[in-house]
Amino acid sequence: MRLAELSKRSGVSTATIKYYLREGLLRPGRQVNATTAEYDEEHLRRLRLVRAMIQVGRVPVATVREVLGHVDDDSLGRTVRLGAALWALPHVPEPDTDDEHLQAAQHEASELLRALGWRNAELLTSISPAFRSLVVAVAAMRRLDFDWDAELLMSYARLMHRAAVLDLDFVETRETEAERVETAVLGTILVEPMLQALHRLAQEEESARRYGFE
Amino acid sequence: MRLAELSKRSGVSTATIKYYLREGLLRPGRQVNATTAEYDEEHLRRLRLVRAMIQVGRVPVATVREVLGHVDDDSLGRTVRLGAALWALPHVPEPDTDDEHLQAAQHEASELLRALGWRNAELLTSISPAFRSLVVAVAAMRRLDFDWDAELLMSYARLMHRAAVLDLDFVETRETEAERVETAVLGTILVEPMLQALHRLAQEEESARRYGFE
Repeated sequence: MRLAELSKRSGVSTATIKYYLREGLLRPGRQVNATTAEYDEEHLRRLRLVRAMIQVGRVPVATVREVLGHVDDDSLGRTVRLGAALWALPHVPEPDTDDEHLQAAQHEASELLRALGWRNAELLTSISPAFRSLVVAVAAMRRLDFDWDAELLMSYARLMHRAAVLDLDFVETRETEAERVETAVLGTILVEPMLQALHRLAQEEESARRYGFE
Repeated sequence: MRLAELSKRSGVSTATIKYYLREGLLRPGRQVNATTAEYDEEHLRRLRLVRAMIQVGRVPVATVREVLGHVDDDSLGRTVRLGAALWALPHVPEPDTDDEHLQAAQHEASELLRALGWRNAELLTSISPAFRSLVVAVAAMRRLDFDWDAELLMSYARLMHRAAVLDLDFVETRETEAERVETAVLGTILVEPMLQALHRLAQEEESARRYGFE
Protein backbone atom coordinates (compact mmCIF):
# COMPACT_ATOMS: atom_id res chain seq x y z
CA MET A 1 0.00 0.00 0.00
CA ARG A 2 1.05 3.64 -0.47
CA LEU A 3 1.66 6.16 2.33
CA ALA A 4 -1.87 7.60 1.98
CA GLU A 5 -3.47 4.19 2.50
CA LEU A 6 -1.16 3.36 5.41
CA SER A 7 -2.29 6.63 6.98
CA LYS A 8 -5.95 5.89 6.35
CA ARG A 9 -5.81 2.32 7.67
CA SER A 10 -3.79 3.22 10.76
CA GLY A 11 -5.54 6.48 11.59
CA VAL A 12 -2.09 8.12 11.88
CA SER A 13 -1.52 11.27 9.78
CA THR A 14 1.03 11.12 6.93
CA ALA A 15 3.04 13.89 8.65
CA THR A 16 3.30 11.76 11.82
CA ILE A 17 4.22 8.64 9.81
CA LYS A 18 7.00 10.62 8.11
CA TYR A 19 8.20 11.76 11.52
CA TYR A 20 8.28 8.15 12.78
CA LEU A 21 10.23 7.15 9.62
CA ARG A 22 12.79 9.92 10.20
CA GLU A 23 13.16 8.89 13.85
CA GLY A 24 13.74 5.28 12.82
CA LEU A 25 10.65 3.98 14.67
CA LEU A 26 9.28 2.55 11.43
CA ARG A 27 11.28 0.69 8.76
CA PRO A 28 11.44 2.48 5.38
CA GLY A 29 8.95 1.22 2.78
CA ARG A 30 10.08 -0.62 -0.36
CA GLN A 31 11.05 2.14 -2.83
CA VAL A 32 9.12 1.59 -6.10
CA ASN A 33 10.34 4.78 -7.76
CA ALA A 34 12.07 8.02 -6.76
CA THR A 35 9.02 9.48 -4.98
CA THR A 36 6.92 6.46 -4.01
CA ALA A 37 7.38 3.73 -1.42
CA GLU A 38 5.27 0.67 -0.79
CA TYR A 39 4.23 -0.39 2.74
CA ASP A 40 2.87 -3.72 3.99
CA GLU A 41 0.91 -5.27 6.85
CA GLU A 42 4.02 -5.37 8.98
CA HIS A 43 4.34 -1.58 8.72
CA LEU A 44 0.73 -1.24 9.76
CA ARG A 45 1.24 -3.44 12.82
CA ARG A 46 4.40 -1.62 13.84
CA LEU A 47 2.68 1.73 13.42
CA ARG A 48 -0.05 0.57 15.78
CA LEU A 49 2.52 -0.38 18.40
CA VAL A 50 4.47 2.89 18.09
CA ARG A 51 1.28 4.91 18.30
CA ALA A 52 0.10 3.04 21.41
CA MET A 53 3.40 3.65 23.17
CA ILE A 54 3.57 7.35 22.27
CA GLN A 55 -0.08 8.40 22.37
CA VAL A 56 -1.56 6.08 24.99
CA GLY A 57 1.47 5.21 27.11
CA ARG A 58 3.14 8.65 26.73
CA VAL A 59 6.47 6.84 26.32
CA PRO A 60 9.32 9.14 25.13
CA VAL A 61 10.59 8.58 21.56
CA ALA A 62 14.07 7.49 22.70
CA THR A 63 12.46 4.84 24.94
CA VAL A 64 10.23 3.64 22.10
CA ARG A 65 13.36 3.14 20.00
CA GLU A 66 14.93 1.12 22.81
CA VAL A 67 11.82 -1.06 23.30
CA LEU A 68 11.61 -1.73 19.54
CA GLY A 69 15.27 -2.77 19.53
CA HIS A 70 14.37 -5.55 21.99
CA VAL A 71 11.13 -6.45 20.19
CA ASP A 72 13.12 -6.98 16.98
CA ASP A 73 16.04 -8.87 18.50
CA ASP A 74 15.13 -12.46 17.65
CA SER A 75 18.50 -13.69 18.87
CA LEU A 76 17.00 -13.53 22.38
CA GLY A 77 14.83 -16.20 24.00
CA ARG A 78 11.17 -15.30 24.43
CA THR A 79 11.28 -14.53 28.18
CA VAL A 80 14.34 -12.31 27.83
CA ARG A 81 12.98 -10.60 24.73
CA LEU A 82 9.63 -9.92 26.40
CA GLY A 83 11.35 -8.86 29.60
CA ALA A 84 13.80 -6.53 27.87
CA ALA A 85 11.01 -4.83 25.92
CA LEU A 86 8.81 -4.39 29.01
CA TRP A 87 11.69 -3.34 31.24
CA ALA A 88 12.48 -0.45 28.92
CA LEU A 89 8.99 1.00 29.58
CA PRO A 90 8.81 3.75 32.22
CA HIS A 91 8.83 2.63 35.85
CA VAL A 92 8.09 4.25 39.17
CA PRO A 93 10.72 6.91 39.88
CA GLU A 94 13.29 6.06 42.53
CA PRO A 95 12.81 7.76 45.91
CA ASP A 96 15.20 10.51 46.94
CA THR A 97 16.30 8.85 50.13
CA ASP A 98 17.71 5.43 50.82
CA ASP A 99 16.48 5.08 54.40
CA GLU A 100 15.90 2.16 56.74
CA HIS A 101 12.35 1.77 55.38
CA LEU A 102 13.71 1.00 51.94
CA GLN A 103 16.02 -1.66 53.36
CA ALA A 104 13.20 -3.25 55.35
CA ALA A 105 10.92 -3.12 52.29
CA GLN A 106 13.58 -4.85 50.19
CA HIS A 107 13.61 -7.69 52.69
CA GLU A 108 9.81 -7.81 52.96
CA ALA A 109 9.33 -7.89 49.17
CA SER A 110 11.89 -10.70 48.78
CA GLU A 111 10.17 -12.71 51.51
CA LEU A 112 6.85 -12.18 49.72
CA LEU A 113 8.08 -13.71 46.44
CA ARG A 114 9.55 -16.65 48.32
CA ALA A 115 6.39 -17.17 50.38
CA LEU A 116 4.37 -17.16 47.15
CA GLY A 117 6.55 -19.99 45.92
CA TRP A 118 7.48 -18.11 42.77
CA ARG A 119 10.16 -20.22 41.15
CA ASN A 120 12.10 -17.30 39.74
CA ALA A 121 12.06 -15.23 42.94
CA GLU A 122 15.85 -15.23 43.19
CA LEU A 123 16.28 -13.85 39.70
CA LEU A 124 13.43 -11.32 39.92
CA THR A 125 14.71 -9.83 43.16
CA SER A 126 18.15 -9.33 41.69
CA ILE A 127 17.39 -7.89 38.25
CA SER A 128 13.75 -6.87 37.69
CA PRO A 129 12.84 -3.15 37.62
CA ALA A 130 9.32 -4.20 38.67
CA PHE A 131 10.80 -5.66 41.86
CA ARG A 132 12.42 -2.30 42.53
CA SER A 133 9.00 -0.62 42.01
CA LEU A 134 7.45 -3.03 44.49
CA VAL A 135 10.14 -2.22 47.05
CA VAL A 136 9.50 1.52 46.58
CA ALA A 137 5.73 0.98 47.03
CA VAL A 138 6.18 -1.15 50.18
CA ALA A 139 8.66 1.38 51.63
CA ALA A 140 6.10 4.19 51.08
CA MET A 141 3.55 2.15 53.06
CA ARG A 142 5.99 1.50 55.90
CA ARG A 143 7.14 5.13 56.03
CA LEU A 144 3.49 6.06 56.64
CA ASP A 145 3.00 3.36 59.29
CA PHE A 146 0.41 1.69 57.10
CA ASP A 147 0.21 -1.55 59.04
CA TRP A 148 -0.63 -4.09 56.39
CA ASP A 149 0.29 -7.63 57.11
CA ALA A 150 2.17 -9.99 54.83
CA GLU A 151 -0.97 -12.08 54.31
CA LEU A 152 -2.84 -9.19 52.67
CA LEU A 153 0.11 -8.44 50.38
CA MET A 154 0.11 -12.10 49.35
CA SER A 155 -3.59 -12.00 48.50
CA TYR A 156 -3.02 -9.03 46.19
CA ALA A 157 -0.03 -10.78 44.61
CA ARG A 158 -2.10 -13.91 43.92
CA LEU A 159 -4.78 -11.82 42.19
CA MET A 160 -2.18 -10.12 40.02
CA HIS A 161 -0.67 -13.49 39.14
CA ARG A 162 -4.09 -14.56 37.86
CA ALA A 163 -4.19 -11.36 35.78
CA ALA A 164 -0.74 -12.24 34.36
CA VAL A 165 -2.01 -15.70 33.37
CA LEU A 166 -4.88 -14.04 31.46
CA ASP A 167 -2.36 -11.67 29.81
CA LEU A 168 -0.07 -14.44 28.61
CA ASP A 169 -2.93 -16.69 27.50
CA PHE A 170 -4.05 -13.84 25.26
CA VAL A 171 -0.51 -13.22 23.97
CA GLU A 172 -0.33 -16.91 23.01
CA THR A 173 -3.34 -16.59 20.70
CA ARG A 174 -1.15 -14.52 18.33
CA GLU A 175 0.31 -16.45 15.41
CA THR A 176 3.90 -15.29 14.94
CA GLU A 177 6.62 -14.68 17.50
CA ALA A 178 6.94 -11.03 16.38
CA GLU A 179 3.23 -10.49 16.96
CA ARG A 180 3.43 -12.11 20.38
CA VAL A 181 6.19 -9.79 21.55
CA GLU A 182 4.35 -6.76 20.13
CA THR A 183 1.11 -7.84 21.79
CA ALA A 184 2.86 -8.19 25.14
CA VAL A 185 4.11 -4.59 24.92
CA LEU A 186 0.74 -3.30 23.68
CA GLY A 187 -0.98 -5.26 26.41
CA THR A 188 1.11 -3.69 29.16
CA ILE A 189 0.33 -0.20 27.87
CA LEU A 190 -3.39 -0.81 27.34
CA VAL A 191 -4.19 -3.17 30.21
CA GLU A 192 -2.66 -1.22 33.11
CA PRO A 193 -4.94 1.85 32.82
CA MET A 194 -7.91 -0.47 32.25
CA LEU A 195 -7.17 -2.47 35.42
CA GLN A 196 -6.83 0.76 37.39
CA ALA A 197 -10.22 2.00 36.14
CA LEU A 198 -11.86 -1.38 36.88
CA HIS A 199 -10.32 -1.38 40.37
CA ARG A 200 -11.76 2.04 41.23
CA LEU A 201 -15.16 1.12 39.76
CA ALA A 202 -15.17 -2.10 41.78
CA GLN A 203 -14.38 -0.12 44.94
CA GLU A 204 -17.39 2.10 44.25
CA GLU A 205 -19.67 -0.86 43.54
CA GLU A 206 -18.53 -2.71 46.66
CA SER A 207 -18.78 0.43 48.78
CA ALA A 208 -22.35 1.08 47.58
CA ARG A 209 -23.24 -2.58 48.27
CA ARG A 210 -21.94 -2.39 51.82
CA TYR A 211 -22.94 1.09 52.89
CA GLY A 212 -25.73 2.10 50.53
CA PHE A 213 -26.18 5.69 49.50
CA GLU A 214 -27.51 7.55 52.51
CA MET B 1 3.11 17.62 71.33
CA ARG B 2 5.10 20.60 70.04
CA LEU B 3 5.99 21.28 66.40
CA ALA B 4 9.43 19.72 66.79
CA GLU B 5 7.98 16.45 68.05
CA LEU B 6 5.28 16.42 65.35
CA SER B 7 8.08 16.79 62.81
CA LYS B 8 10.13 14.00 64.36
CA ARG B 9 7.22 11.56 64.64
CA SER B 10 5.91 12.24 61.13
CA GLY B 11 9.27 12.46 59.38
CA VAL B 12 8.08 15.74 57.79
CA SER B 13 10.35 18.79 58.24
CA THR B 14 9.08 21.70 60.35
CA ALA B 15 9.36 23.99 57.30
CA THR B 16 7.07 21.67 55.32
CA ILE B 17 4.60 21.40 58.24
CA LYS B 18 4.46 25.23 58.39
CA TYR B 19 3.81 25.30 54.65
CA TYR B 20 0.93 22.80 55.01
CA LEU B 21 -0.48 24.94 57.88
CA ARG B 22 -0.33 28.10 55.72
CA GLU B 23 -2.01 26.28 52.83
CA GLY B 24 -4.79 25.10 55.13
CA LEU B 25 -3.99 21.39 54.61
CA LEU B 26 -3.48 20.94 58.36
CA ARG B 27 -5.63 22.46 61.13
CA PRO B 28 -3.81 24.97 63.38
CA GLY B 29 -2.57 23.57 66.68
CA ARG B 30 -4.02 24.65 70.02
CA GLN B 31 -2.22 27.88 70.88
CA VAL B 32 -0.71 27.55 74.38
CA ASN B 33 1.03 30.92 74.32
CA ALA B 34 2.04 33.58 71.77
CA THR B 35 4.77 31.48 70.15
CA THR B 36 3.86 27.87 70.92
CA ALA B 37 1.10 25.59 69.64
CA GLU B 38 0.21 22.10 70.78
CA TYR B 39 -0.53 19.29 68.27
CA ASP B 40 -2.23 15.93 68.80
CA GLU B 41 -2.58 12.46 67.27
CA GLU B 42 -5.15 13.75 64.82
CA HIS B 43 -2.60 16.21 63.42
CA LEU B 44 -0.13 13.38 63.05
CA ARG B 45 -2.64 11.26 61.13
CA ARG B 46 -3.65 14.11 58.87
CA LEU B 47 -0.02 14.92 58.17
CA ARG B 48 0.54 11.34 57.08
CA LEU B 49 -2.37 11.56 54.64
CA VAL B 50 -1.28 14.93 53.19
CA ARG B 51 2.27 13.67 52.77
CA ALA B 52 1.12 10.50 51.01
CA MET B 53 -0.99 12.48 48.55
CA ILE B 54 1.72 15.05 47.79
CA GLN B 55 4.89 12.96 47.95
CA VAL B 56 3.73 9.52 46.87
CA GLY B 57 0.65 10.32 44.77
CA ARG B 58 2.07 13.60 43.37
CA VAL B 59 -1.37 15.15 43.85
CA PRO B 60 -1.39 18.98 43.42
CA VAL B 61 -1.96 21.05 46.58
CA ALA B 62 -5.31 22.46 45.36
CA THR B 63 -6.56 18.89 44.78
CA VAL B 64 -5.36 17.80 48.22
CA ARG B 65 -7.42 20.63 49.71
CA GLU B 66 -10.47 19.44 47.74
CA VAL B 67 -10.03 15.79 48.81
CA LEU B 68 -9.65 16.83 52.47
CA GLY B 69 -12.85 18.89 52.23
CA HIS B 70 -14.70 15.67 51.36
CA VAL B 71 -12.84 13.58 53.95
CA ASP B 72 -13.93 16.06 56.65
CA ASP B 73 -17.52 16.46 55.53
CA ASP B 74 -19.32 14.15 57.95
CA SER B 75 -22.71 15.37 56.76
CA LEU B 76 -22.26 12.94 53.84
CA GLY B 77 -23.04 9.21 53.94
CA ARG B 78 -20.00 6.91 53.85
CA THR B 79 -20.25 5.85 50.20
CA VAL B 80 -20.65 9.42 49.00
CA ARG B 81 -17.91 10.70 51.27
CA LEU B 82 -15.51 7.99 50.16
CA GLY B 83 -16.52 8.49 46.54
CA ALA B 84 -16.16 12.27 46.65
CA ALA B 85 -12.69 12.01 48.21
CA LEU B 86 -11.50 9.39 45.70
CA TRP B 87 -13.11 11.11 42.71
CA ALA B 88 -11.13 14.26 43.41
CA LEU B 89 -7.87 12.30 42.88
CA PRO B 90 -6.28 12.63 39.43
CA HIS B 91 -7.80 10.49 36.67
CA VAL B 92 -6.79 9.46 33.17
CA PRO B 93 -6.77 12.56 30.93
CA GLU B 94 -9.64 12.81 28.45
CA PRO B 95 -8.75 12.00 24.84
CA ASP B 96 -8.57 14.82 22.31
CA THR B 97 -11.12 13.37 19.97
CA ASP B 98 -14.65 12.15 20.52
CA ASP B 99 -14.75 9.61 17.71
CA GLU B 100 -16.89 6.58 16.96
CA HIS B 101 -14.52 4.37 19.00
CA LEU B 102 -15.33 6.35 22.12
CA GLN B 103 -19.05 5.92 21.54
CA ALA B 104 -18.68 2.19 20.97
CA ALA B 105 -16.48 1.89 24.06
CA GLN B 106 -19.10 3.71 26.14
CA HIS B 107 -21.63 1.09 25.09
CA GLU B 108 -19.21 -1.79 25.62
CA ALA B 109 -18.22 -0.62 29.12
CA SER B 110 -21.89 -0.19 30.16
CA GLU B 111 -22.66 -3.69 28.90
CA LEU B 112 -19.72 -5.03 30.90
CA LEU B 113 -21.02 -3.63 34.21
CA ARG B 114 -24.49 -5.00 33.51
CA ALA B 115 -23.12 -8.42 32.49
CA LEU B 116 -21.14 -8.51 35.74
CA GLY B 117 -24.38 -8.03 37.60
CA TRP B 118 -23.06 -5.00 39.43
CA ARG B 119 -26.08 -3.57 41.22
CA ASN B 120 -25.02 0.03 40.90
CA ALA B 121 -24.11 -0.17 37.20
CA GLU B 122 -26.72 2.43 36.25
CA LEU B 123 -25.36 4.96 38.70
CA LEU B 124 -21.68 4.25 38.00
CA THR B 125 -22.07 4.65 34.25
CA SER B 126 -23.75 8.01 34.68
CA ILE B 127 -21.55 9.72 37.28
CA SER B 128 -18.28 7.91 38.06
CA PRO B 129 -14.98 9.38 36.75
CA ALA B 130 -13.57 5.84 36.93
CA PHE B 131 -16.21 4.73 34.42
CA ARG B 132 -15.02 7.50 32.10
CA SER B 133 -11.42 6.22 32.53
CA LEU B 134 -12.58 2.72 31.62
CA VAL B 135 -14.30 4.03 28.48
CA VAL B 136 -11.10 5.85 27.47
CA ALA B 137 -9.05 2.66 28.02
CA VAL B 138 -11.46 0.49 26.03
CA ALA B 139 -11.61 3.08 23.21
CA ALA B 140 -7.78 3.05 23.02
CA MET B 141 -7.91 -0.75 22.58
CA ARG B 142 -10.54 -0.53 19.88
CA ARG B 143 -8.76 2.27 18.03
CA LEU B 144 -5.76 -0.09 17.80
CA ASP B 145 -7.85 -3.07 16.66
CA PHE B 146 -6.89 -4.93 19.80
CA ASP B 147 -9.44 -7.71 19.48
CA TRP B 148 -10.19 -8.61 23.05
CA ASP B 149 -13.48 -10.25 23.71
CA ALA B 150 -16.00 -9.27 26.37
CA GLU B 151 -15.28 -12.49 28.29
CA LEU B 152 -11.65 -11.51 28.90
CA LEU B 153 -12.66 -8.03 30.03
CA MET B 154 -15.09 -9.65 32.50
CA SER B 155 -12.37 -11.89 33.91
CA TYR B 156 -10.17 -8.85 34.61
CA ALA B 157 -13.14 -7.02 36.18
CA ARG B 158 -13.85 -9.97 38.50
CA LEU B 159 -10.22 -10.01 39.67
CA MET B 160 -10.34 -6.28 40.39
CA HIS B 161 -13.58 -6.72 42.29
CA ARG B 162 -11.81 -9.23 44.52
CA ALA B 163 -9.06 -6.65 45.06
CA ALA B 164 -11.73 -4.08 46.03
CA VAL B 165 -13.17 -6.51 48.60
CA LEU B 166 -9.68 -6.84 50.16
CA ASP B 167 -9.37 -3.02 50.14
CA LEU B 168 -12.66 -2.42 51.93
CA ASP B 169 -12.13 -5.27 54.40
CA PHE B 170 -8.91 -3.54 55.39
CA VAL B 171 -10.60 -0.12 55.63
CA GLU B 172 -13.17 -1.65 57.99
CA THR B 173 -10.47 -2.68 60.46
CA ARG B 174 -10.01 1.04 61.33
CA GLU B 175 -11.81 2.21 64.44
CA THR B 176 -13.28 5.63 63.68
CA GLU B 177 -15.16 6.86 60.63
CA ALA B 178 -12.56 9.61 60.04
CA GLU B 179 -9.80 7.00 60.01
CA ARG B 180 -11.76 4.82 57.61
CA VAL B 181 -12.17 7.61 55.07
CA GLU B 182 -8.49 8.57 55.42
CA THR B 183 -7.41 4.95 55.02
CA ALA B 184 -9.48 4.62 51.84
CA VAL B 185 -7.70 7.62 50.29
CA LEU B 186 -4.29 6.45 51.52
CA GLY B 187 -5.06 2.97 50.22
CA THR B 188 -5.86 4.21 46.73
CA ILE B 189 -2.60 6.15 46.56
CA LEU B 190 -0.43 3.37 47.99
CA VAL B 191 -2.13 0.27 46.58
CA GLU B 192 -2.31 1.24 42.90
CA PRO B 193 1.47 1.45 42.31
CA MET B 194 1.90 -1.73 44.36
CA LEU B 195 -0.62 -3.65 42.24
CA GLN B 196 1.08 -2.43 39.06
CA ALA B 197 4.49 -3.62 40.31
CA LEU B 198 3.02 -7.00 41.38
CA HIS B 199 1.33 -7.36 37.99
CA ARG B 200 4.58 -6.83 36.06
CA LEU B 201 6.48 -9.16 38.40
CA ALA B 202 3.80 -11.80 37.96
CA GLN B 203 4.09 -11.46 34.17
CA GLU B 204 7.82 -12.08 34.44
CA GLU B 205 7.37 -15.07 36.75
CA GLU B 206 4.68 -16.60 34.53
CA SER B 207 6.69 -15.91 31.38
CA ALA B 208 9.77 -17.60 32.86
CA ARG B 209 7.63 -20.58 33.96
CA ARG B 210 6.22 -21.03 30.48
CA TYR B 211 9.18 -20.25 28.26
CA GLY B 212 12.23 -20.69 30.49
CA PHE B 213 15.28 -18.56 29.98
CA GLU B 214 16.91 -19.74 26.76
